[in-house]
Amino acid sequence: MKSNPASATLSYDQAGVNYDQIDPLKIAAQRAAASTAGHLATHGCAEVAASRGESAYVVDVGPFYLASIVECLGSKALVADAMHELTGRSWYDGIAQDTIAMAINDLITVGATPLVVQAYWAAGGSEWFGDAARAAALVDGWKRACDACGVAWGGGETPALAGIVEGGRIDLAAACTGIVNPRERLSVGDALGPGDAIVLLASSGIHANGLSLARKLVERLPQGYLTPIAPGLSYGEALLAPTTLYSPVTEALYRAGIVPHYSANITGHGWRKLLRHARALTYRIHAVPDVPPVLRYIRQQARQDDREAYSTFNMGAGFALFVAEGDAERTVEVARAQGIAAWHAGRVEAGEKQLLIEPLGIRYGADDLQLR
Amino acid sequence: MKSNPASATLSYDQAGVNYDQIDPLKIAAQRAAASTAGHLATHGCAEVAASRGESAYVVDVGPFYLASIVECLGSKALVADAMHELTGRSWYDGIAQDTIAMAINDLITVGATPLVVQAYWAAGGSEWFGDAARAAALVDGWKRACDACGVAWGGGETPALAGIVEGGRIDLAAACTGIVNPRERLSVGDALGPGDAIVLLASSGIHANGLSLARKLVERLPQGYLTPIAPGLSYGEALLAPTTLYSPVTEALYRAGIVPHYSANITGHGWRKLLRHARALTYRIHAVPDVPPVLRYIRQQARQDDREAYSTFNMGAGFALFVAEGDAERTVEVARAQGIAAWHAGRVEAGEKQLLIEPLGIRYGADDLQLR
Repeated sequence: MKSNPASATLSYDQAGVNYDQIDPLKIAAQRAAASTAGHLATHGCAEVAASRGESAYVVDVGPFYLASIVECLGSKALVADAMHELTGRSWYDGIAQDTIAMAINDLITVGATPLVVQAYWAAGGSEWFGDAARAAALVDGWKRACDACGVAWGGGETPALAGIVEGGRIDLAAACTGIVNPRERLSVGDALGPGDAIVLLASSGIHANGLSLARKLVERLPQGYLTPIAPGLSYGEALLAPTTLYSPVTEALYRAGIVPHYSANITGHGWRKLLRHARALTYRIHAVPDVPPVLRYIRQQARQDDREAYSTFNMGAGFALFVAEGDAERTVEVARAQGIAAWHAGRVEAGEKQLLIEPLGIRYGADDLQLR
Repeated sequence: MKSNPASATLSYDQAGVNYDQIDPLKIAAQRAAASTAGHLATHGCAEVAASRGESAYVVDVGPFYLASIVECLGSKALVADAMHELTGRSWYDGIAQDTIAMAINDLITVGATPLVVQAYWAAGGSEWFGDAARAAALVDGWKRACDACGVAWGGGETPALAGIVEGGRIDLAAACTGIVNPRERLSVGDALGPGDAIVLLASSGIHANGLSLARKLVERLPQGYLTPIAPGLSYGEALLAPTTLYSPVTEALYRAGIVPHYSANITGHGWRKLLRHARALTYRIHAVPDVPPVLRYIRQQARQDDREAYSTFNMGAGFALFVAEGDAERTVEVARAQGIAAWHAGRVEAGEKQLLIEPLGIRYGADDLQLR
């Protein structure tokens, strides 16, 4: 069966995203962006330079720090659209949560408390908003995600962009602003070091990263999105499990007196995100969480080995907290009290920059993570 | 020629945006958003309720106020794409400024100093970013607009969204966060009242509002975007004049000791935006600025009367400042010192909610502005 493309390994590059074309622009943009930092001084503020390259941008405004971000959902809405045609129900309540999670879960990595979310809902035409059930699901899901994270929904944009966004589609994004208060909560990696414990927080499934590959894969499945992957669970429904919101955990940690030394949101690049910080450190994982059924299924169908799978998907761990060794067990308890499974899964050590997932015999080195 | 559709009046509704389909969603979203305000108290913050319905959302964070916003460019990039095909040059440096202006010019209406801009550049595929000249123009224009406004470019998103954004197109938006500092700069209309002077700031052309109609119109022009509208100036080039950035004026006003009682960014709905504040007041305009050639041309070609034109386009005035009568002349001088023409154009009076443009004999009442 080697010659049958339907049974060949499917990698992320084959799924249609060519980073070689995007990277030169990103590098130019990052350079230009960095050159604007000096403007803040004219307003009595200053950039936290270490936040360049982190998941959110941080500005010192005096009494506390300001953090801000804009994040795109990506292509998960296409799965919701396909499943709507197949099942008749709207899945946009979950899609709303996914979109907010993309922004919130990044913003909190720097120690910020999210305060305000702005909605960016750009439809292919005004008729998108004319489907009342879908529109109501989007609004309800957005509000419930704001409630879960304790953020105010400030407002947003709902443009109809015929000719730019495809007809019947919607481009969803969220902007989020928060504060790091008190200033000691700032987490851009200064405190990260040997001896820290690695606590992993459970994911709910694929979250909103790796969907291009997951959508590509559906072409191979005889029943498409309705293919059962577990009793009573279709592939499409499993993909659409909303992304876990982690800010209730980071806020509860602060209330419990625990300030993480560093955090990583495990999104694109999968577990390689554990190597996110620039410092040369070794991350040794001694326990891996159970893999959610949908990710187990994708790995199997895409003929990925563990190394490829863990470098693409979250594989059951959606967020990593690096905490003082003595705080590890309590961190796990605090997360579980918020309804999110957590594991004291590893340890930071002095040594070359690498991630060792010992139970699986996987090693990723510094070269394996070129962040984009 | 009455039966020739090419000579018929072209209104905004005919240009393809059907607000009746969007409005129910917007109302539901606004209601849901308002219900999330209470969360701020758990973080020691509070919503400035009067900012709901204003151009930016404001939160009281204690020492000062925080303002945030996300804004979409709209369809102006389609004009740049068409002009690129016709002229071979990229117009995305100006498009970048337009996008930032959409966010900044709204954010400053509440009295905020813009601090951080985040870029949202969602392309129809990775190949969009592969056009190096266009990508460089976008980056350069974005940086120059940040420099002009004294904001830090914090970062952003550059997703490739094949299947959502059309191939070869890009969906551009900007998120902006700022602070209102000192708190006395907050401007949500409390100070607006009879006797205030109305100062209008010049626009550079169509800015980024009314482009659906302007693009529709091009179908009637024998030479399309290359139709000359003035010696050496094509319709397309005139449309692509970058939107004026007004934050240098509002910052200079503060340095000059002038705090506007209210501000209005004149975007969609044209001069009806002068009626933006909820209060019942009469706005009497005694002088109108010269109309930029491109807007004069559109009005003529679309067979619009003044009433329709001023209710759709900025007609030469892109921003309105409502200041104490005694500050009016100095406000004009401060704007001119920033290179932006300005006029002491009218006055706020007690009376029913209406805008009277006396030189043109136009009256808009409260019913003429249903803000969306």
